[in-house]
Amino acid sequence: MASCPLCQPVTETVLWQDTRCRVILVSDPDYPGFCRVVWREHVKEMTDLTETDRAHFMSVVFAAERVLRDSLKPDKINLASLGNQVPHLHWHVIPRYAGDAHFPDPVWAARKRDTGKAGIDGAALKERLAQRLREVLT
Amino acid sequence: MASCPLCQPVTETVLWQDTRCRVILVSDPDYPGFCRVVWREHVKEMTDLTETDRAHFMSVVFAAERVLRDSLKPDKINLASLGNQVPHLHWHVIPRYAGDAHFPDPVWAARKRDTGKAGIDGAALKERLAQRLREVLT
Repeated sequence: MASCPLCQPVTETVLWQDTRCRVILVSDPDYPGFCRVVWREHVKEMTDLTETDRAHFMSVVFAAERVLRDSLKPDKINLASLGNQVPHLHWHVIPRYAGDAHFPDPVWAARKRDTGKAGIDGAALKERLAQRLREVLT
Repeated sequence: MASCPLCQPVTETVLWQDTRCRVILVSDPDYPGFCRVVWREHVKEMTDLTETDRAHFMSVVFAAERVLRDSLKPDKINLASLGNQVPHLHWHVIPRYAGDAHFPDPVWAARKRDTGKAGIDGAALKERLAQRLREVLT
């Protein structure tokens, strides 16, 4: 769909992909390691997918959760498929920490505090996550 | 766990349950039909479950999505597993409408408007959703 930013991405940091979906690293200084898993086709709801595609998509979401837990040791993982603004299936996979900008609220609630995570080496993190995703998803 | 409100629920409207999880109807006047799917055991993350249990849990989440779409025709379904405040696995399954209290933002963001949904017959909705869940999940 021409007007959809997930159908026509301009800049994305892709960590892993296959013919059905891709894992991208979100650029958010508050949440290093925040990933999105994006379905390739423009589909609105999980129950619009076949059971096989749904299982594949979720296996990639849970692989991203596994890799973030192993690599970053967050206090909690948040998973969400919302799509009110961009109704093209995508999952947010967010590593959360007790001291992060919104904890214990969801990242979409009012900000609670400033954080000191901006100094993380994004390039090294990207390589580490991409490498682990390749290992987990082969 | 004695201190966990999902291990020791006081009042819940259970729509469907089996030995592993339950679907409850959330009492929220802004969001009639808002359901939660709660894992029975006190487990923190999806990747702490076995692959079989994870697939079963998600099949119930997607059944709830299917039933809410069929019964309420929302503009979008929102799915989320957060658990920052109650780290006992539960999925929010939320029917969203263009005119609802927070649209197009997540329900955890700042409220945007008042809504006129409070007049919905909660008892009838409960019966309808419970009946459809039994049909879909047998």
